[in-house]
Amino acid sequence: MELPKGYLIAIGGAEDKGEKEGQFDLYHESAILRNVVDIIQQQGEPCTIGVVTTASSIPEEVSIIYDGAFRKLGITNVEHFDIIHREEADSKDILNRLEQCSGIFFTGGDQLKLTSRLGGTDFLNMIKDRYHNEPFVIAGTSAGAMALSNIMISGGSATKGHLKGRVKISIGFNFLENVIIDTHFNARGRFNRLAQVVATQPDMLGIGLEDDTGIIIRQGSNSQIIGYGTVTILDGKHITDTNISTINNDQPISLKNLVVHLLCKNEYFNVKTRTSAPVNAIDASQLAKKEVLQKNE
Amino acid sequence: MELPKGYLIAIGGAEDKGEKEGQFDLYHESAILRNVVDIIQQQGEPCTIGVVTTASSIPEEVSIIYDGAFRKLGITNVEHFDIIHREEADSKDILNRLEQCSGIFFTGGDQLKLTSRLGGTDFLNMIKDRYHNEPFVIAGTSAGAMALSNIMISGGSATKGHLKGRVKISIGFNFLENVIIDTHFNARGRFNRLAQVVATQPDMLGIGLEDDTGIIIRQGSNSQIIGYGTVTILDGKHITDTNISTINNDQPISLKNLVVHLLCKNEYFNVKTRTSAPVNAIDASQLAKKEVLQKNE
Repeated sequence: MELPKGYLIAIGGAEDKGEKEGQFDLYHESAILRNVVDIIQQQGEPCTIGVVTTASSIPEEVSIIYDGAFRKLGITNVEHFDIIHREEADSKDILNRLEQCSGIFFTGGDQLKLTSRLGGTDFLNMIKDRYHNEPFVIAGTSAGAMALSNIMISGGSATKGHLKGRVKISIGFNFLENVIIDTHFNARGRFNRLAQVVATQPDMLGIGLEDDTGIIIRQGSNSQIIGYGTVTILDGKHITDTNISTINNDQPISLKNLVVHLLCKNEYFNVKTRTSAPVNAIDASQLAKKEVLQKNE
Repeated sequence: MELPKGYLIAIGGAEDKGEKEGQFDLYHESAILRNVVDIIQQQGEPCTIGVVTTASSIPEEVSIIYDGAFRKLGITNVEHFDIIHREEADSKDILNRLEQCSGIFFTGGDQLKLTSRLGGTDFLNMIKDRYHNEPFVIAGTSAGAMALSNIMISGGSATKGHLKGRVKISIGFNFLENVIIDTHFNARGRFNRLAQVVATQPDMLGIGLEDDTGIIIRQGSNSQIIGYGTVTILDGKHITDTNISTINNDQPISLKNLVVHLLCKNEYFNVKTRTSAPVNAIDASQLAKKEVLQKNE
């Protein structure tokens, strides 16, 4: 199967949006949204980013904040997609506006709103097509990141994540296979809830994204960490034993030989081969990009 | 070096003490304190347990609670050791009382109070001697568990545990080498703070104990999980890379290939060989014990 030509950028939530004092500087080389804009602007300027607030319970407020942030960072035009009803997501107007975008940003909120409202619509299909055929950027934060993979966590306790059944999964947008993404990972202590999902099918790769931290996935494989915190990778492939199929709900799970990586800014990981990608595995345009990033450090 | 003949029982804190309604039943086969008493009673009855409240800021209240719990569980006599000044820990009276005990239970509180008040005293030396030469039981919960190993975590943020320097270590009682114990592990999301300590010296084995969950370590090696939750083992030996020596404080750490096990009740692990101990590696008296436990299930 041909590799997608686009970029996925999954963000752990609570990224600096430049709207609060005492936050990180939006222009800092580690700033997540600056990294998102850098990747989008590679496609040439002027460019348009679409902000999808479908997950949010306060879509207007959220769109204003991202509009401000992206314009500060030099994006010429920000389109707001507040799709609530499925039929809107099939409308010509929406699709015309989506066509103008070089990338899409899914905000936080409730990931089930995202998938139930957008799954199978022309809007989502066009995003998928563009992601496969162009250097189109699909970014998402918090709920917007959880929804990117084929399976998503739709709910569950952090502190009781070690008890069977306390994590709920649902079906994501499937931009990425065999991966499950969790967010606010360190801030909310979500290691066990992600480990539980990985234990149910050890071929899954768990990606735990801390607040204000993200991962840029190129061509569905080579990835680079961005932002201020850590990305926790849970590789289930080597699990030798787990009791998850033999215990009752609310009993503690066990598993052996889960391989864990903590990664931070400018480290690389290939989510397909599950290895740390050496620098020469990154394509030339990315190397150039990396040099720019390093110069700015 | 000869293996110690005693038992260490490290508990993650917040174990059922039978004093609250709606708690687990103290007599349940999973009840931590019942397991502690079972091990102590193997030495013959009547028996005495010493409760050391040195770590606690409310030693009287705490001693009354444990006195009640241990007596309910059939312990004939409970000695209260509230040692505040180091010279008390060298007194004949204290040592005579300790001699009567079949085991010692260190309560929670502040682990630095434990180590700074008891380290190097005759009281602690007698405990260590007995642990090495008799089937003496050393149990500890929360701070009392953290202090059992050679290196202990003395403070640190859970949510910022991925940032260098946010975990403080100190020197423990050294009943156990190359092991570092953390407690309240799932309830407080402490994965990263334990991972950070392991990354500083990957020969360390991290043991993360959830609330109301513990590990019985026999002869400093073969171990059995007890209680209601999970024990998280972080084996640093296979770590291939970590940035911890090259970054500044408050920067995110990275590490690759940390091997993690989640274990639960009645699973075995050898903290020396770092392997799941097969049942036949457990000595015969323990097998007998196990059968009794299973009958009661």
